[in-house]
Amino acid sequence: MLAEIITIGDELLIGQVVDTNSAFIAKSLNNIGVSVYQITSIQDDKKHILKAFKNAESRVDIIIITGGLGPTKDDITKKTIAEYFNDNLVLNQDVLKNIEAIWERFGRQKLLQVNKDQALVPSKSTVFVNELGTAPGMWLEKQEKTFISLPGVPFEMRNLVSKAVIPKLKQKYSCPFILHRTLLIYGLGESNLAHRIESWEDNLPSHIKLAYLPSVGKMRLRLSSKGFNQEQIITDVQNQINTLLPLIKDEFVGFEEDQQSLEVFIGNKLKALNKTLAVAESCTGGKLAQQITKDKGVSAFFKGGVVSYATQSKIDILNVNQDLIDRHSVASREVVEAMALNTQALFNSDYAIATTGNAGPDKGDSKVEIGTVFIAIATKTEVFSEKFIFGQPRERVINRAVTKALELFQKEILKN
Amino acid sequence: MLAEIITIGDELLIGQVVDTNSAFIAKSLNNIGVSVYQITSIQDDKKHILKAFKNAESRVDIIIITGGLGPTKDDITKKTIAEYFNDNLVLNQDVLKNIEAIWERFGRQKLLQVNKDQALVPSKSTVFVNELGTAPGMWLEKQEKTFISLPGVPFEMRNLVSKAVIPKLKQKYSCPFILHRTLLIYGLGESNLAHRIESWEDNLPSHIKLAYLPSVGKMRLRLSSKGFNQEQIITDVQNQINTLLPLIKDEFVGFEEDQQSLEVFIGNKLKALNKTLAVAESCTGGKLAQQITKDKGVSAFFKGGVVSYATQSKIDILNVNQDLIDRHSVASREVVEAMALNTQALFNSDYAIATTGNAGPDKGDSKVEIGTVFIAIATKTEVFSEKFIFGQPRERVINRAVTKALELFQKEILKN
Repeated sequence: MLAEIITIGDELLIGQVVDTNSAFIAKSLNNIGVSVYQITSIQDDKKHILKAFKNAESRVDIIIITGGLGPTKDDITKKTIAEYFNDNLVLNQDVLKNIEAIWERFGRQKLLQVNKDQALVPSKSTVFVNELGTAPGMWLEKQEKTFISLPGVPFEMRNLVSKAVIPKLKQKYSCPFILHRTLLIYGLGESNLAHRIESWEDNLPSHIKLAYLPSVGKMRLRLSSKGFNQEQIITDVQNQINTLLPLIKDEFVGFEEDQQSLEVFIGNKLKALNKTLAVAESCTGGKLAQQITKDKGVSAFFKGGVVSYATQSKIDILNVNQDLIDRHSVASREVVEAMALNTQALFNSDYAIATTGNAGPDKGDSKVEIGTVFIAIATKTEVFSEKFIFGQPRERVINRAVTKALELFQKEILKN
Repeated sequence: MLAEIITIGDELLIGQVVDTNSAFIAKSLNNIGVSVYQITSIQDDKKHILKAFKNAESRVDIIIITGGLGPTKDDITKKTIAEYFNDNLVLNQDVLKNIEAIWERFGRQKLLQVNKDQALVPSKSTVFVNELGTAPGMWLEKQEKTFISLPGVPFEMRNLVSKAVIPKLKQKYSCPFILHRTLLIYGLGESNLAHRIESWEDNLPSHIKLAYLPSVGKMRLRLSSKGFNQEQIITDVQNQINTLLPLIKDEFVGFEEDQQSLEVFIGNKLKALNKTLAVAESCTGGKLAQQITKDKGVSAFFKGGVVSYATQSKIDILNVNQDLIDRHSVASREVVEAMALNTQALFNSDYAIATTGNAGPDKGDSKVEIGTVFIAIATKTEVFSEKFIFGQPRERVINRAVTKALELFQKEILKN
């Protein structure tokens, strides 16, 4: 079962917007055994859209289209779909009611004709009412092929894919099972890894595909397989992994698919332990707190944080000793440990994480090399810290520091 | 002059990685007058790659390919390009030297054959040595068509595009001038905006294209035009904008192309005024501080912040009166104003921004509707606050609250 994702919008082709929708859709399709053959981004142009539909139809079974469903003149997807299906647009009462409800909820003025027109849909389509916005999702069939049109606004699209599109695809198609297992490997470059596992790779059965995915500080090695015999696929892939693991036993740290995001893992663990956390941040500037509070239900374990950006605020708010800073510099083990301990006391939390360092590009108050970050963890019984050098640029230093802080903390609470 | 971007990699088609490369390339091409006709993401599969090359060649003049240039067996782009051009691979000494230099710089063990093989390039290609990595960029011509192959690692690719690809394209092709002007409009929804400017839009000359780009809390309205008479294009677009502006005079805030980001604007303004800022955040959970500290040079004006996530931390650290919270609820004008004033005192800053509310999806300690956020600004002479209802989901509420807080603050310091 093959799919193509077509994203429509000039903003993609002039680089004004990054297409994040396709990755979400591709992942959702993969989960139910649908392989994405191609992703195509095209302009808001009728001829181009029609051509893309025709090409996609010749290649794949399922075509998912996002974008171009707004109320204005540059939104031409719906009309173009109707033309492609030799269909006309009819008013859908459910969609109209939804639009009216949204209008009422936000206390807007009266509905304009263009708003009402968003309730027009191709007569042959099955409609998915979009509770988060005014543009509906639409499902149309042409012999064995299925066209699905979705709004381009990411959170509206995601909600429709999860709640409506995926269930309906599962109902209609009998899809194979797709398995991806991605090994996370630290401390081994792409070519050295390939060299080390060469004979293993050469003996991989043809139905298992291997991919090397290098990224900042780690390698991901992905084995993929698909077929209708789910049990066999799982066994085959597992057997290959069993042969592989002894070759990389010092560098292998886990499977990407088994890992929840760090902050979700930490949140669940803290809730289970009935423990609380607070943070103090200097160079990470609030990003650590932001990462922790991204998901819901955080108030059960997260007490809060201090962004002690200015050196003086480390003294005034975090009660770090001026003398300690003078002696060791604001970016030091001594200061970061004091930050963690005092934050724990300030928030009356069981644990505290603290960061200080220099994310660059300038030296600032600290005396350390640009990219140096100290991270401390305070527990009920001790405080400890580590020093890291994360290189450049600024954004990367901040991101790596936040990830490393969460990793260190995860390791700590796993001891419980 | 038309281009197509082809990104190669299974990781894109299973949704493991978001394609950020295409937006960067598209923007860079647009700047020199090359329009991107299509972006195509395909698998690491020889047949599929060959087919994509052929299709692209039939549609456009310039084909830019990223990905599939690593040292391992799943990296097949280079061989496939050689096949497409009926060419063979030859060792390039400059590339080899670069690989050896990188090896030495990182103190790695001896070069493997697969590393040396990265210096193999199609004999017909012009090579761009990649100083940031081992895979080179390659430029091949076929009659009037140009194929450019680049590594998929974003920072390597960006460096090659800016330093090598764009200059060489400008040399080879005589490109038209492309102008985008994007008006930022606040407080007017997509359909209401379209309604208000309808007759203006109907009278736009055909060479000026209009696009509506709704995003969190604002509308972007983009006028685009291209042609070889640069002066005429600038005049025509400016004339249209002059007619448009009186229609949206209360809602127009500036041009995206002219604007620095809000936080950069605020930083520069505060530095010019020699004033300082601190923040207190509840529902935005650190995102406001993170946004402010994203860019360099922040310590000149940013003192820091408190993420008072738990209600108790508003009392303990921000010294908000327990009684005030009991009387008005933790999400109220009274509490957010107290947060702002006390933060200003705590950090001894000239200004403070505070947020409190409920980002959802659960009610939590607050009594307000999910999505409600209060924002307060404290200045040396007053404190004021506003209430907003930002809807759902959580991520969007947080983002809108942060943007709105920075906007309110920008408006305030613009008075100076």
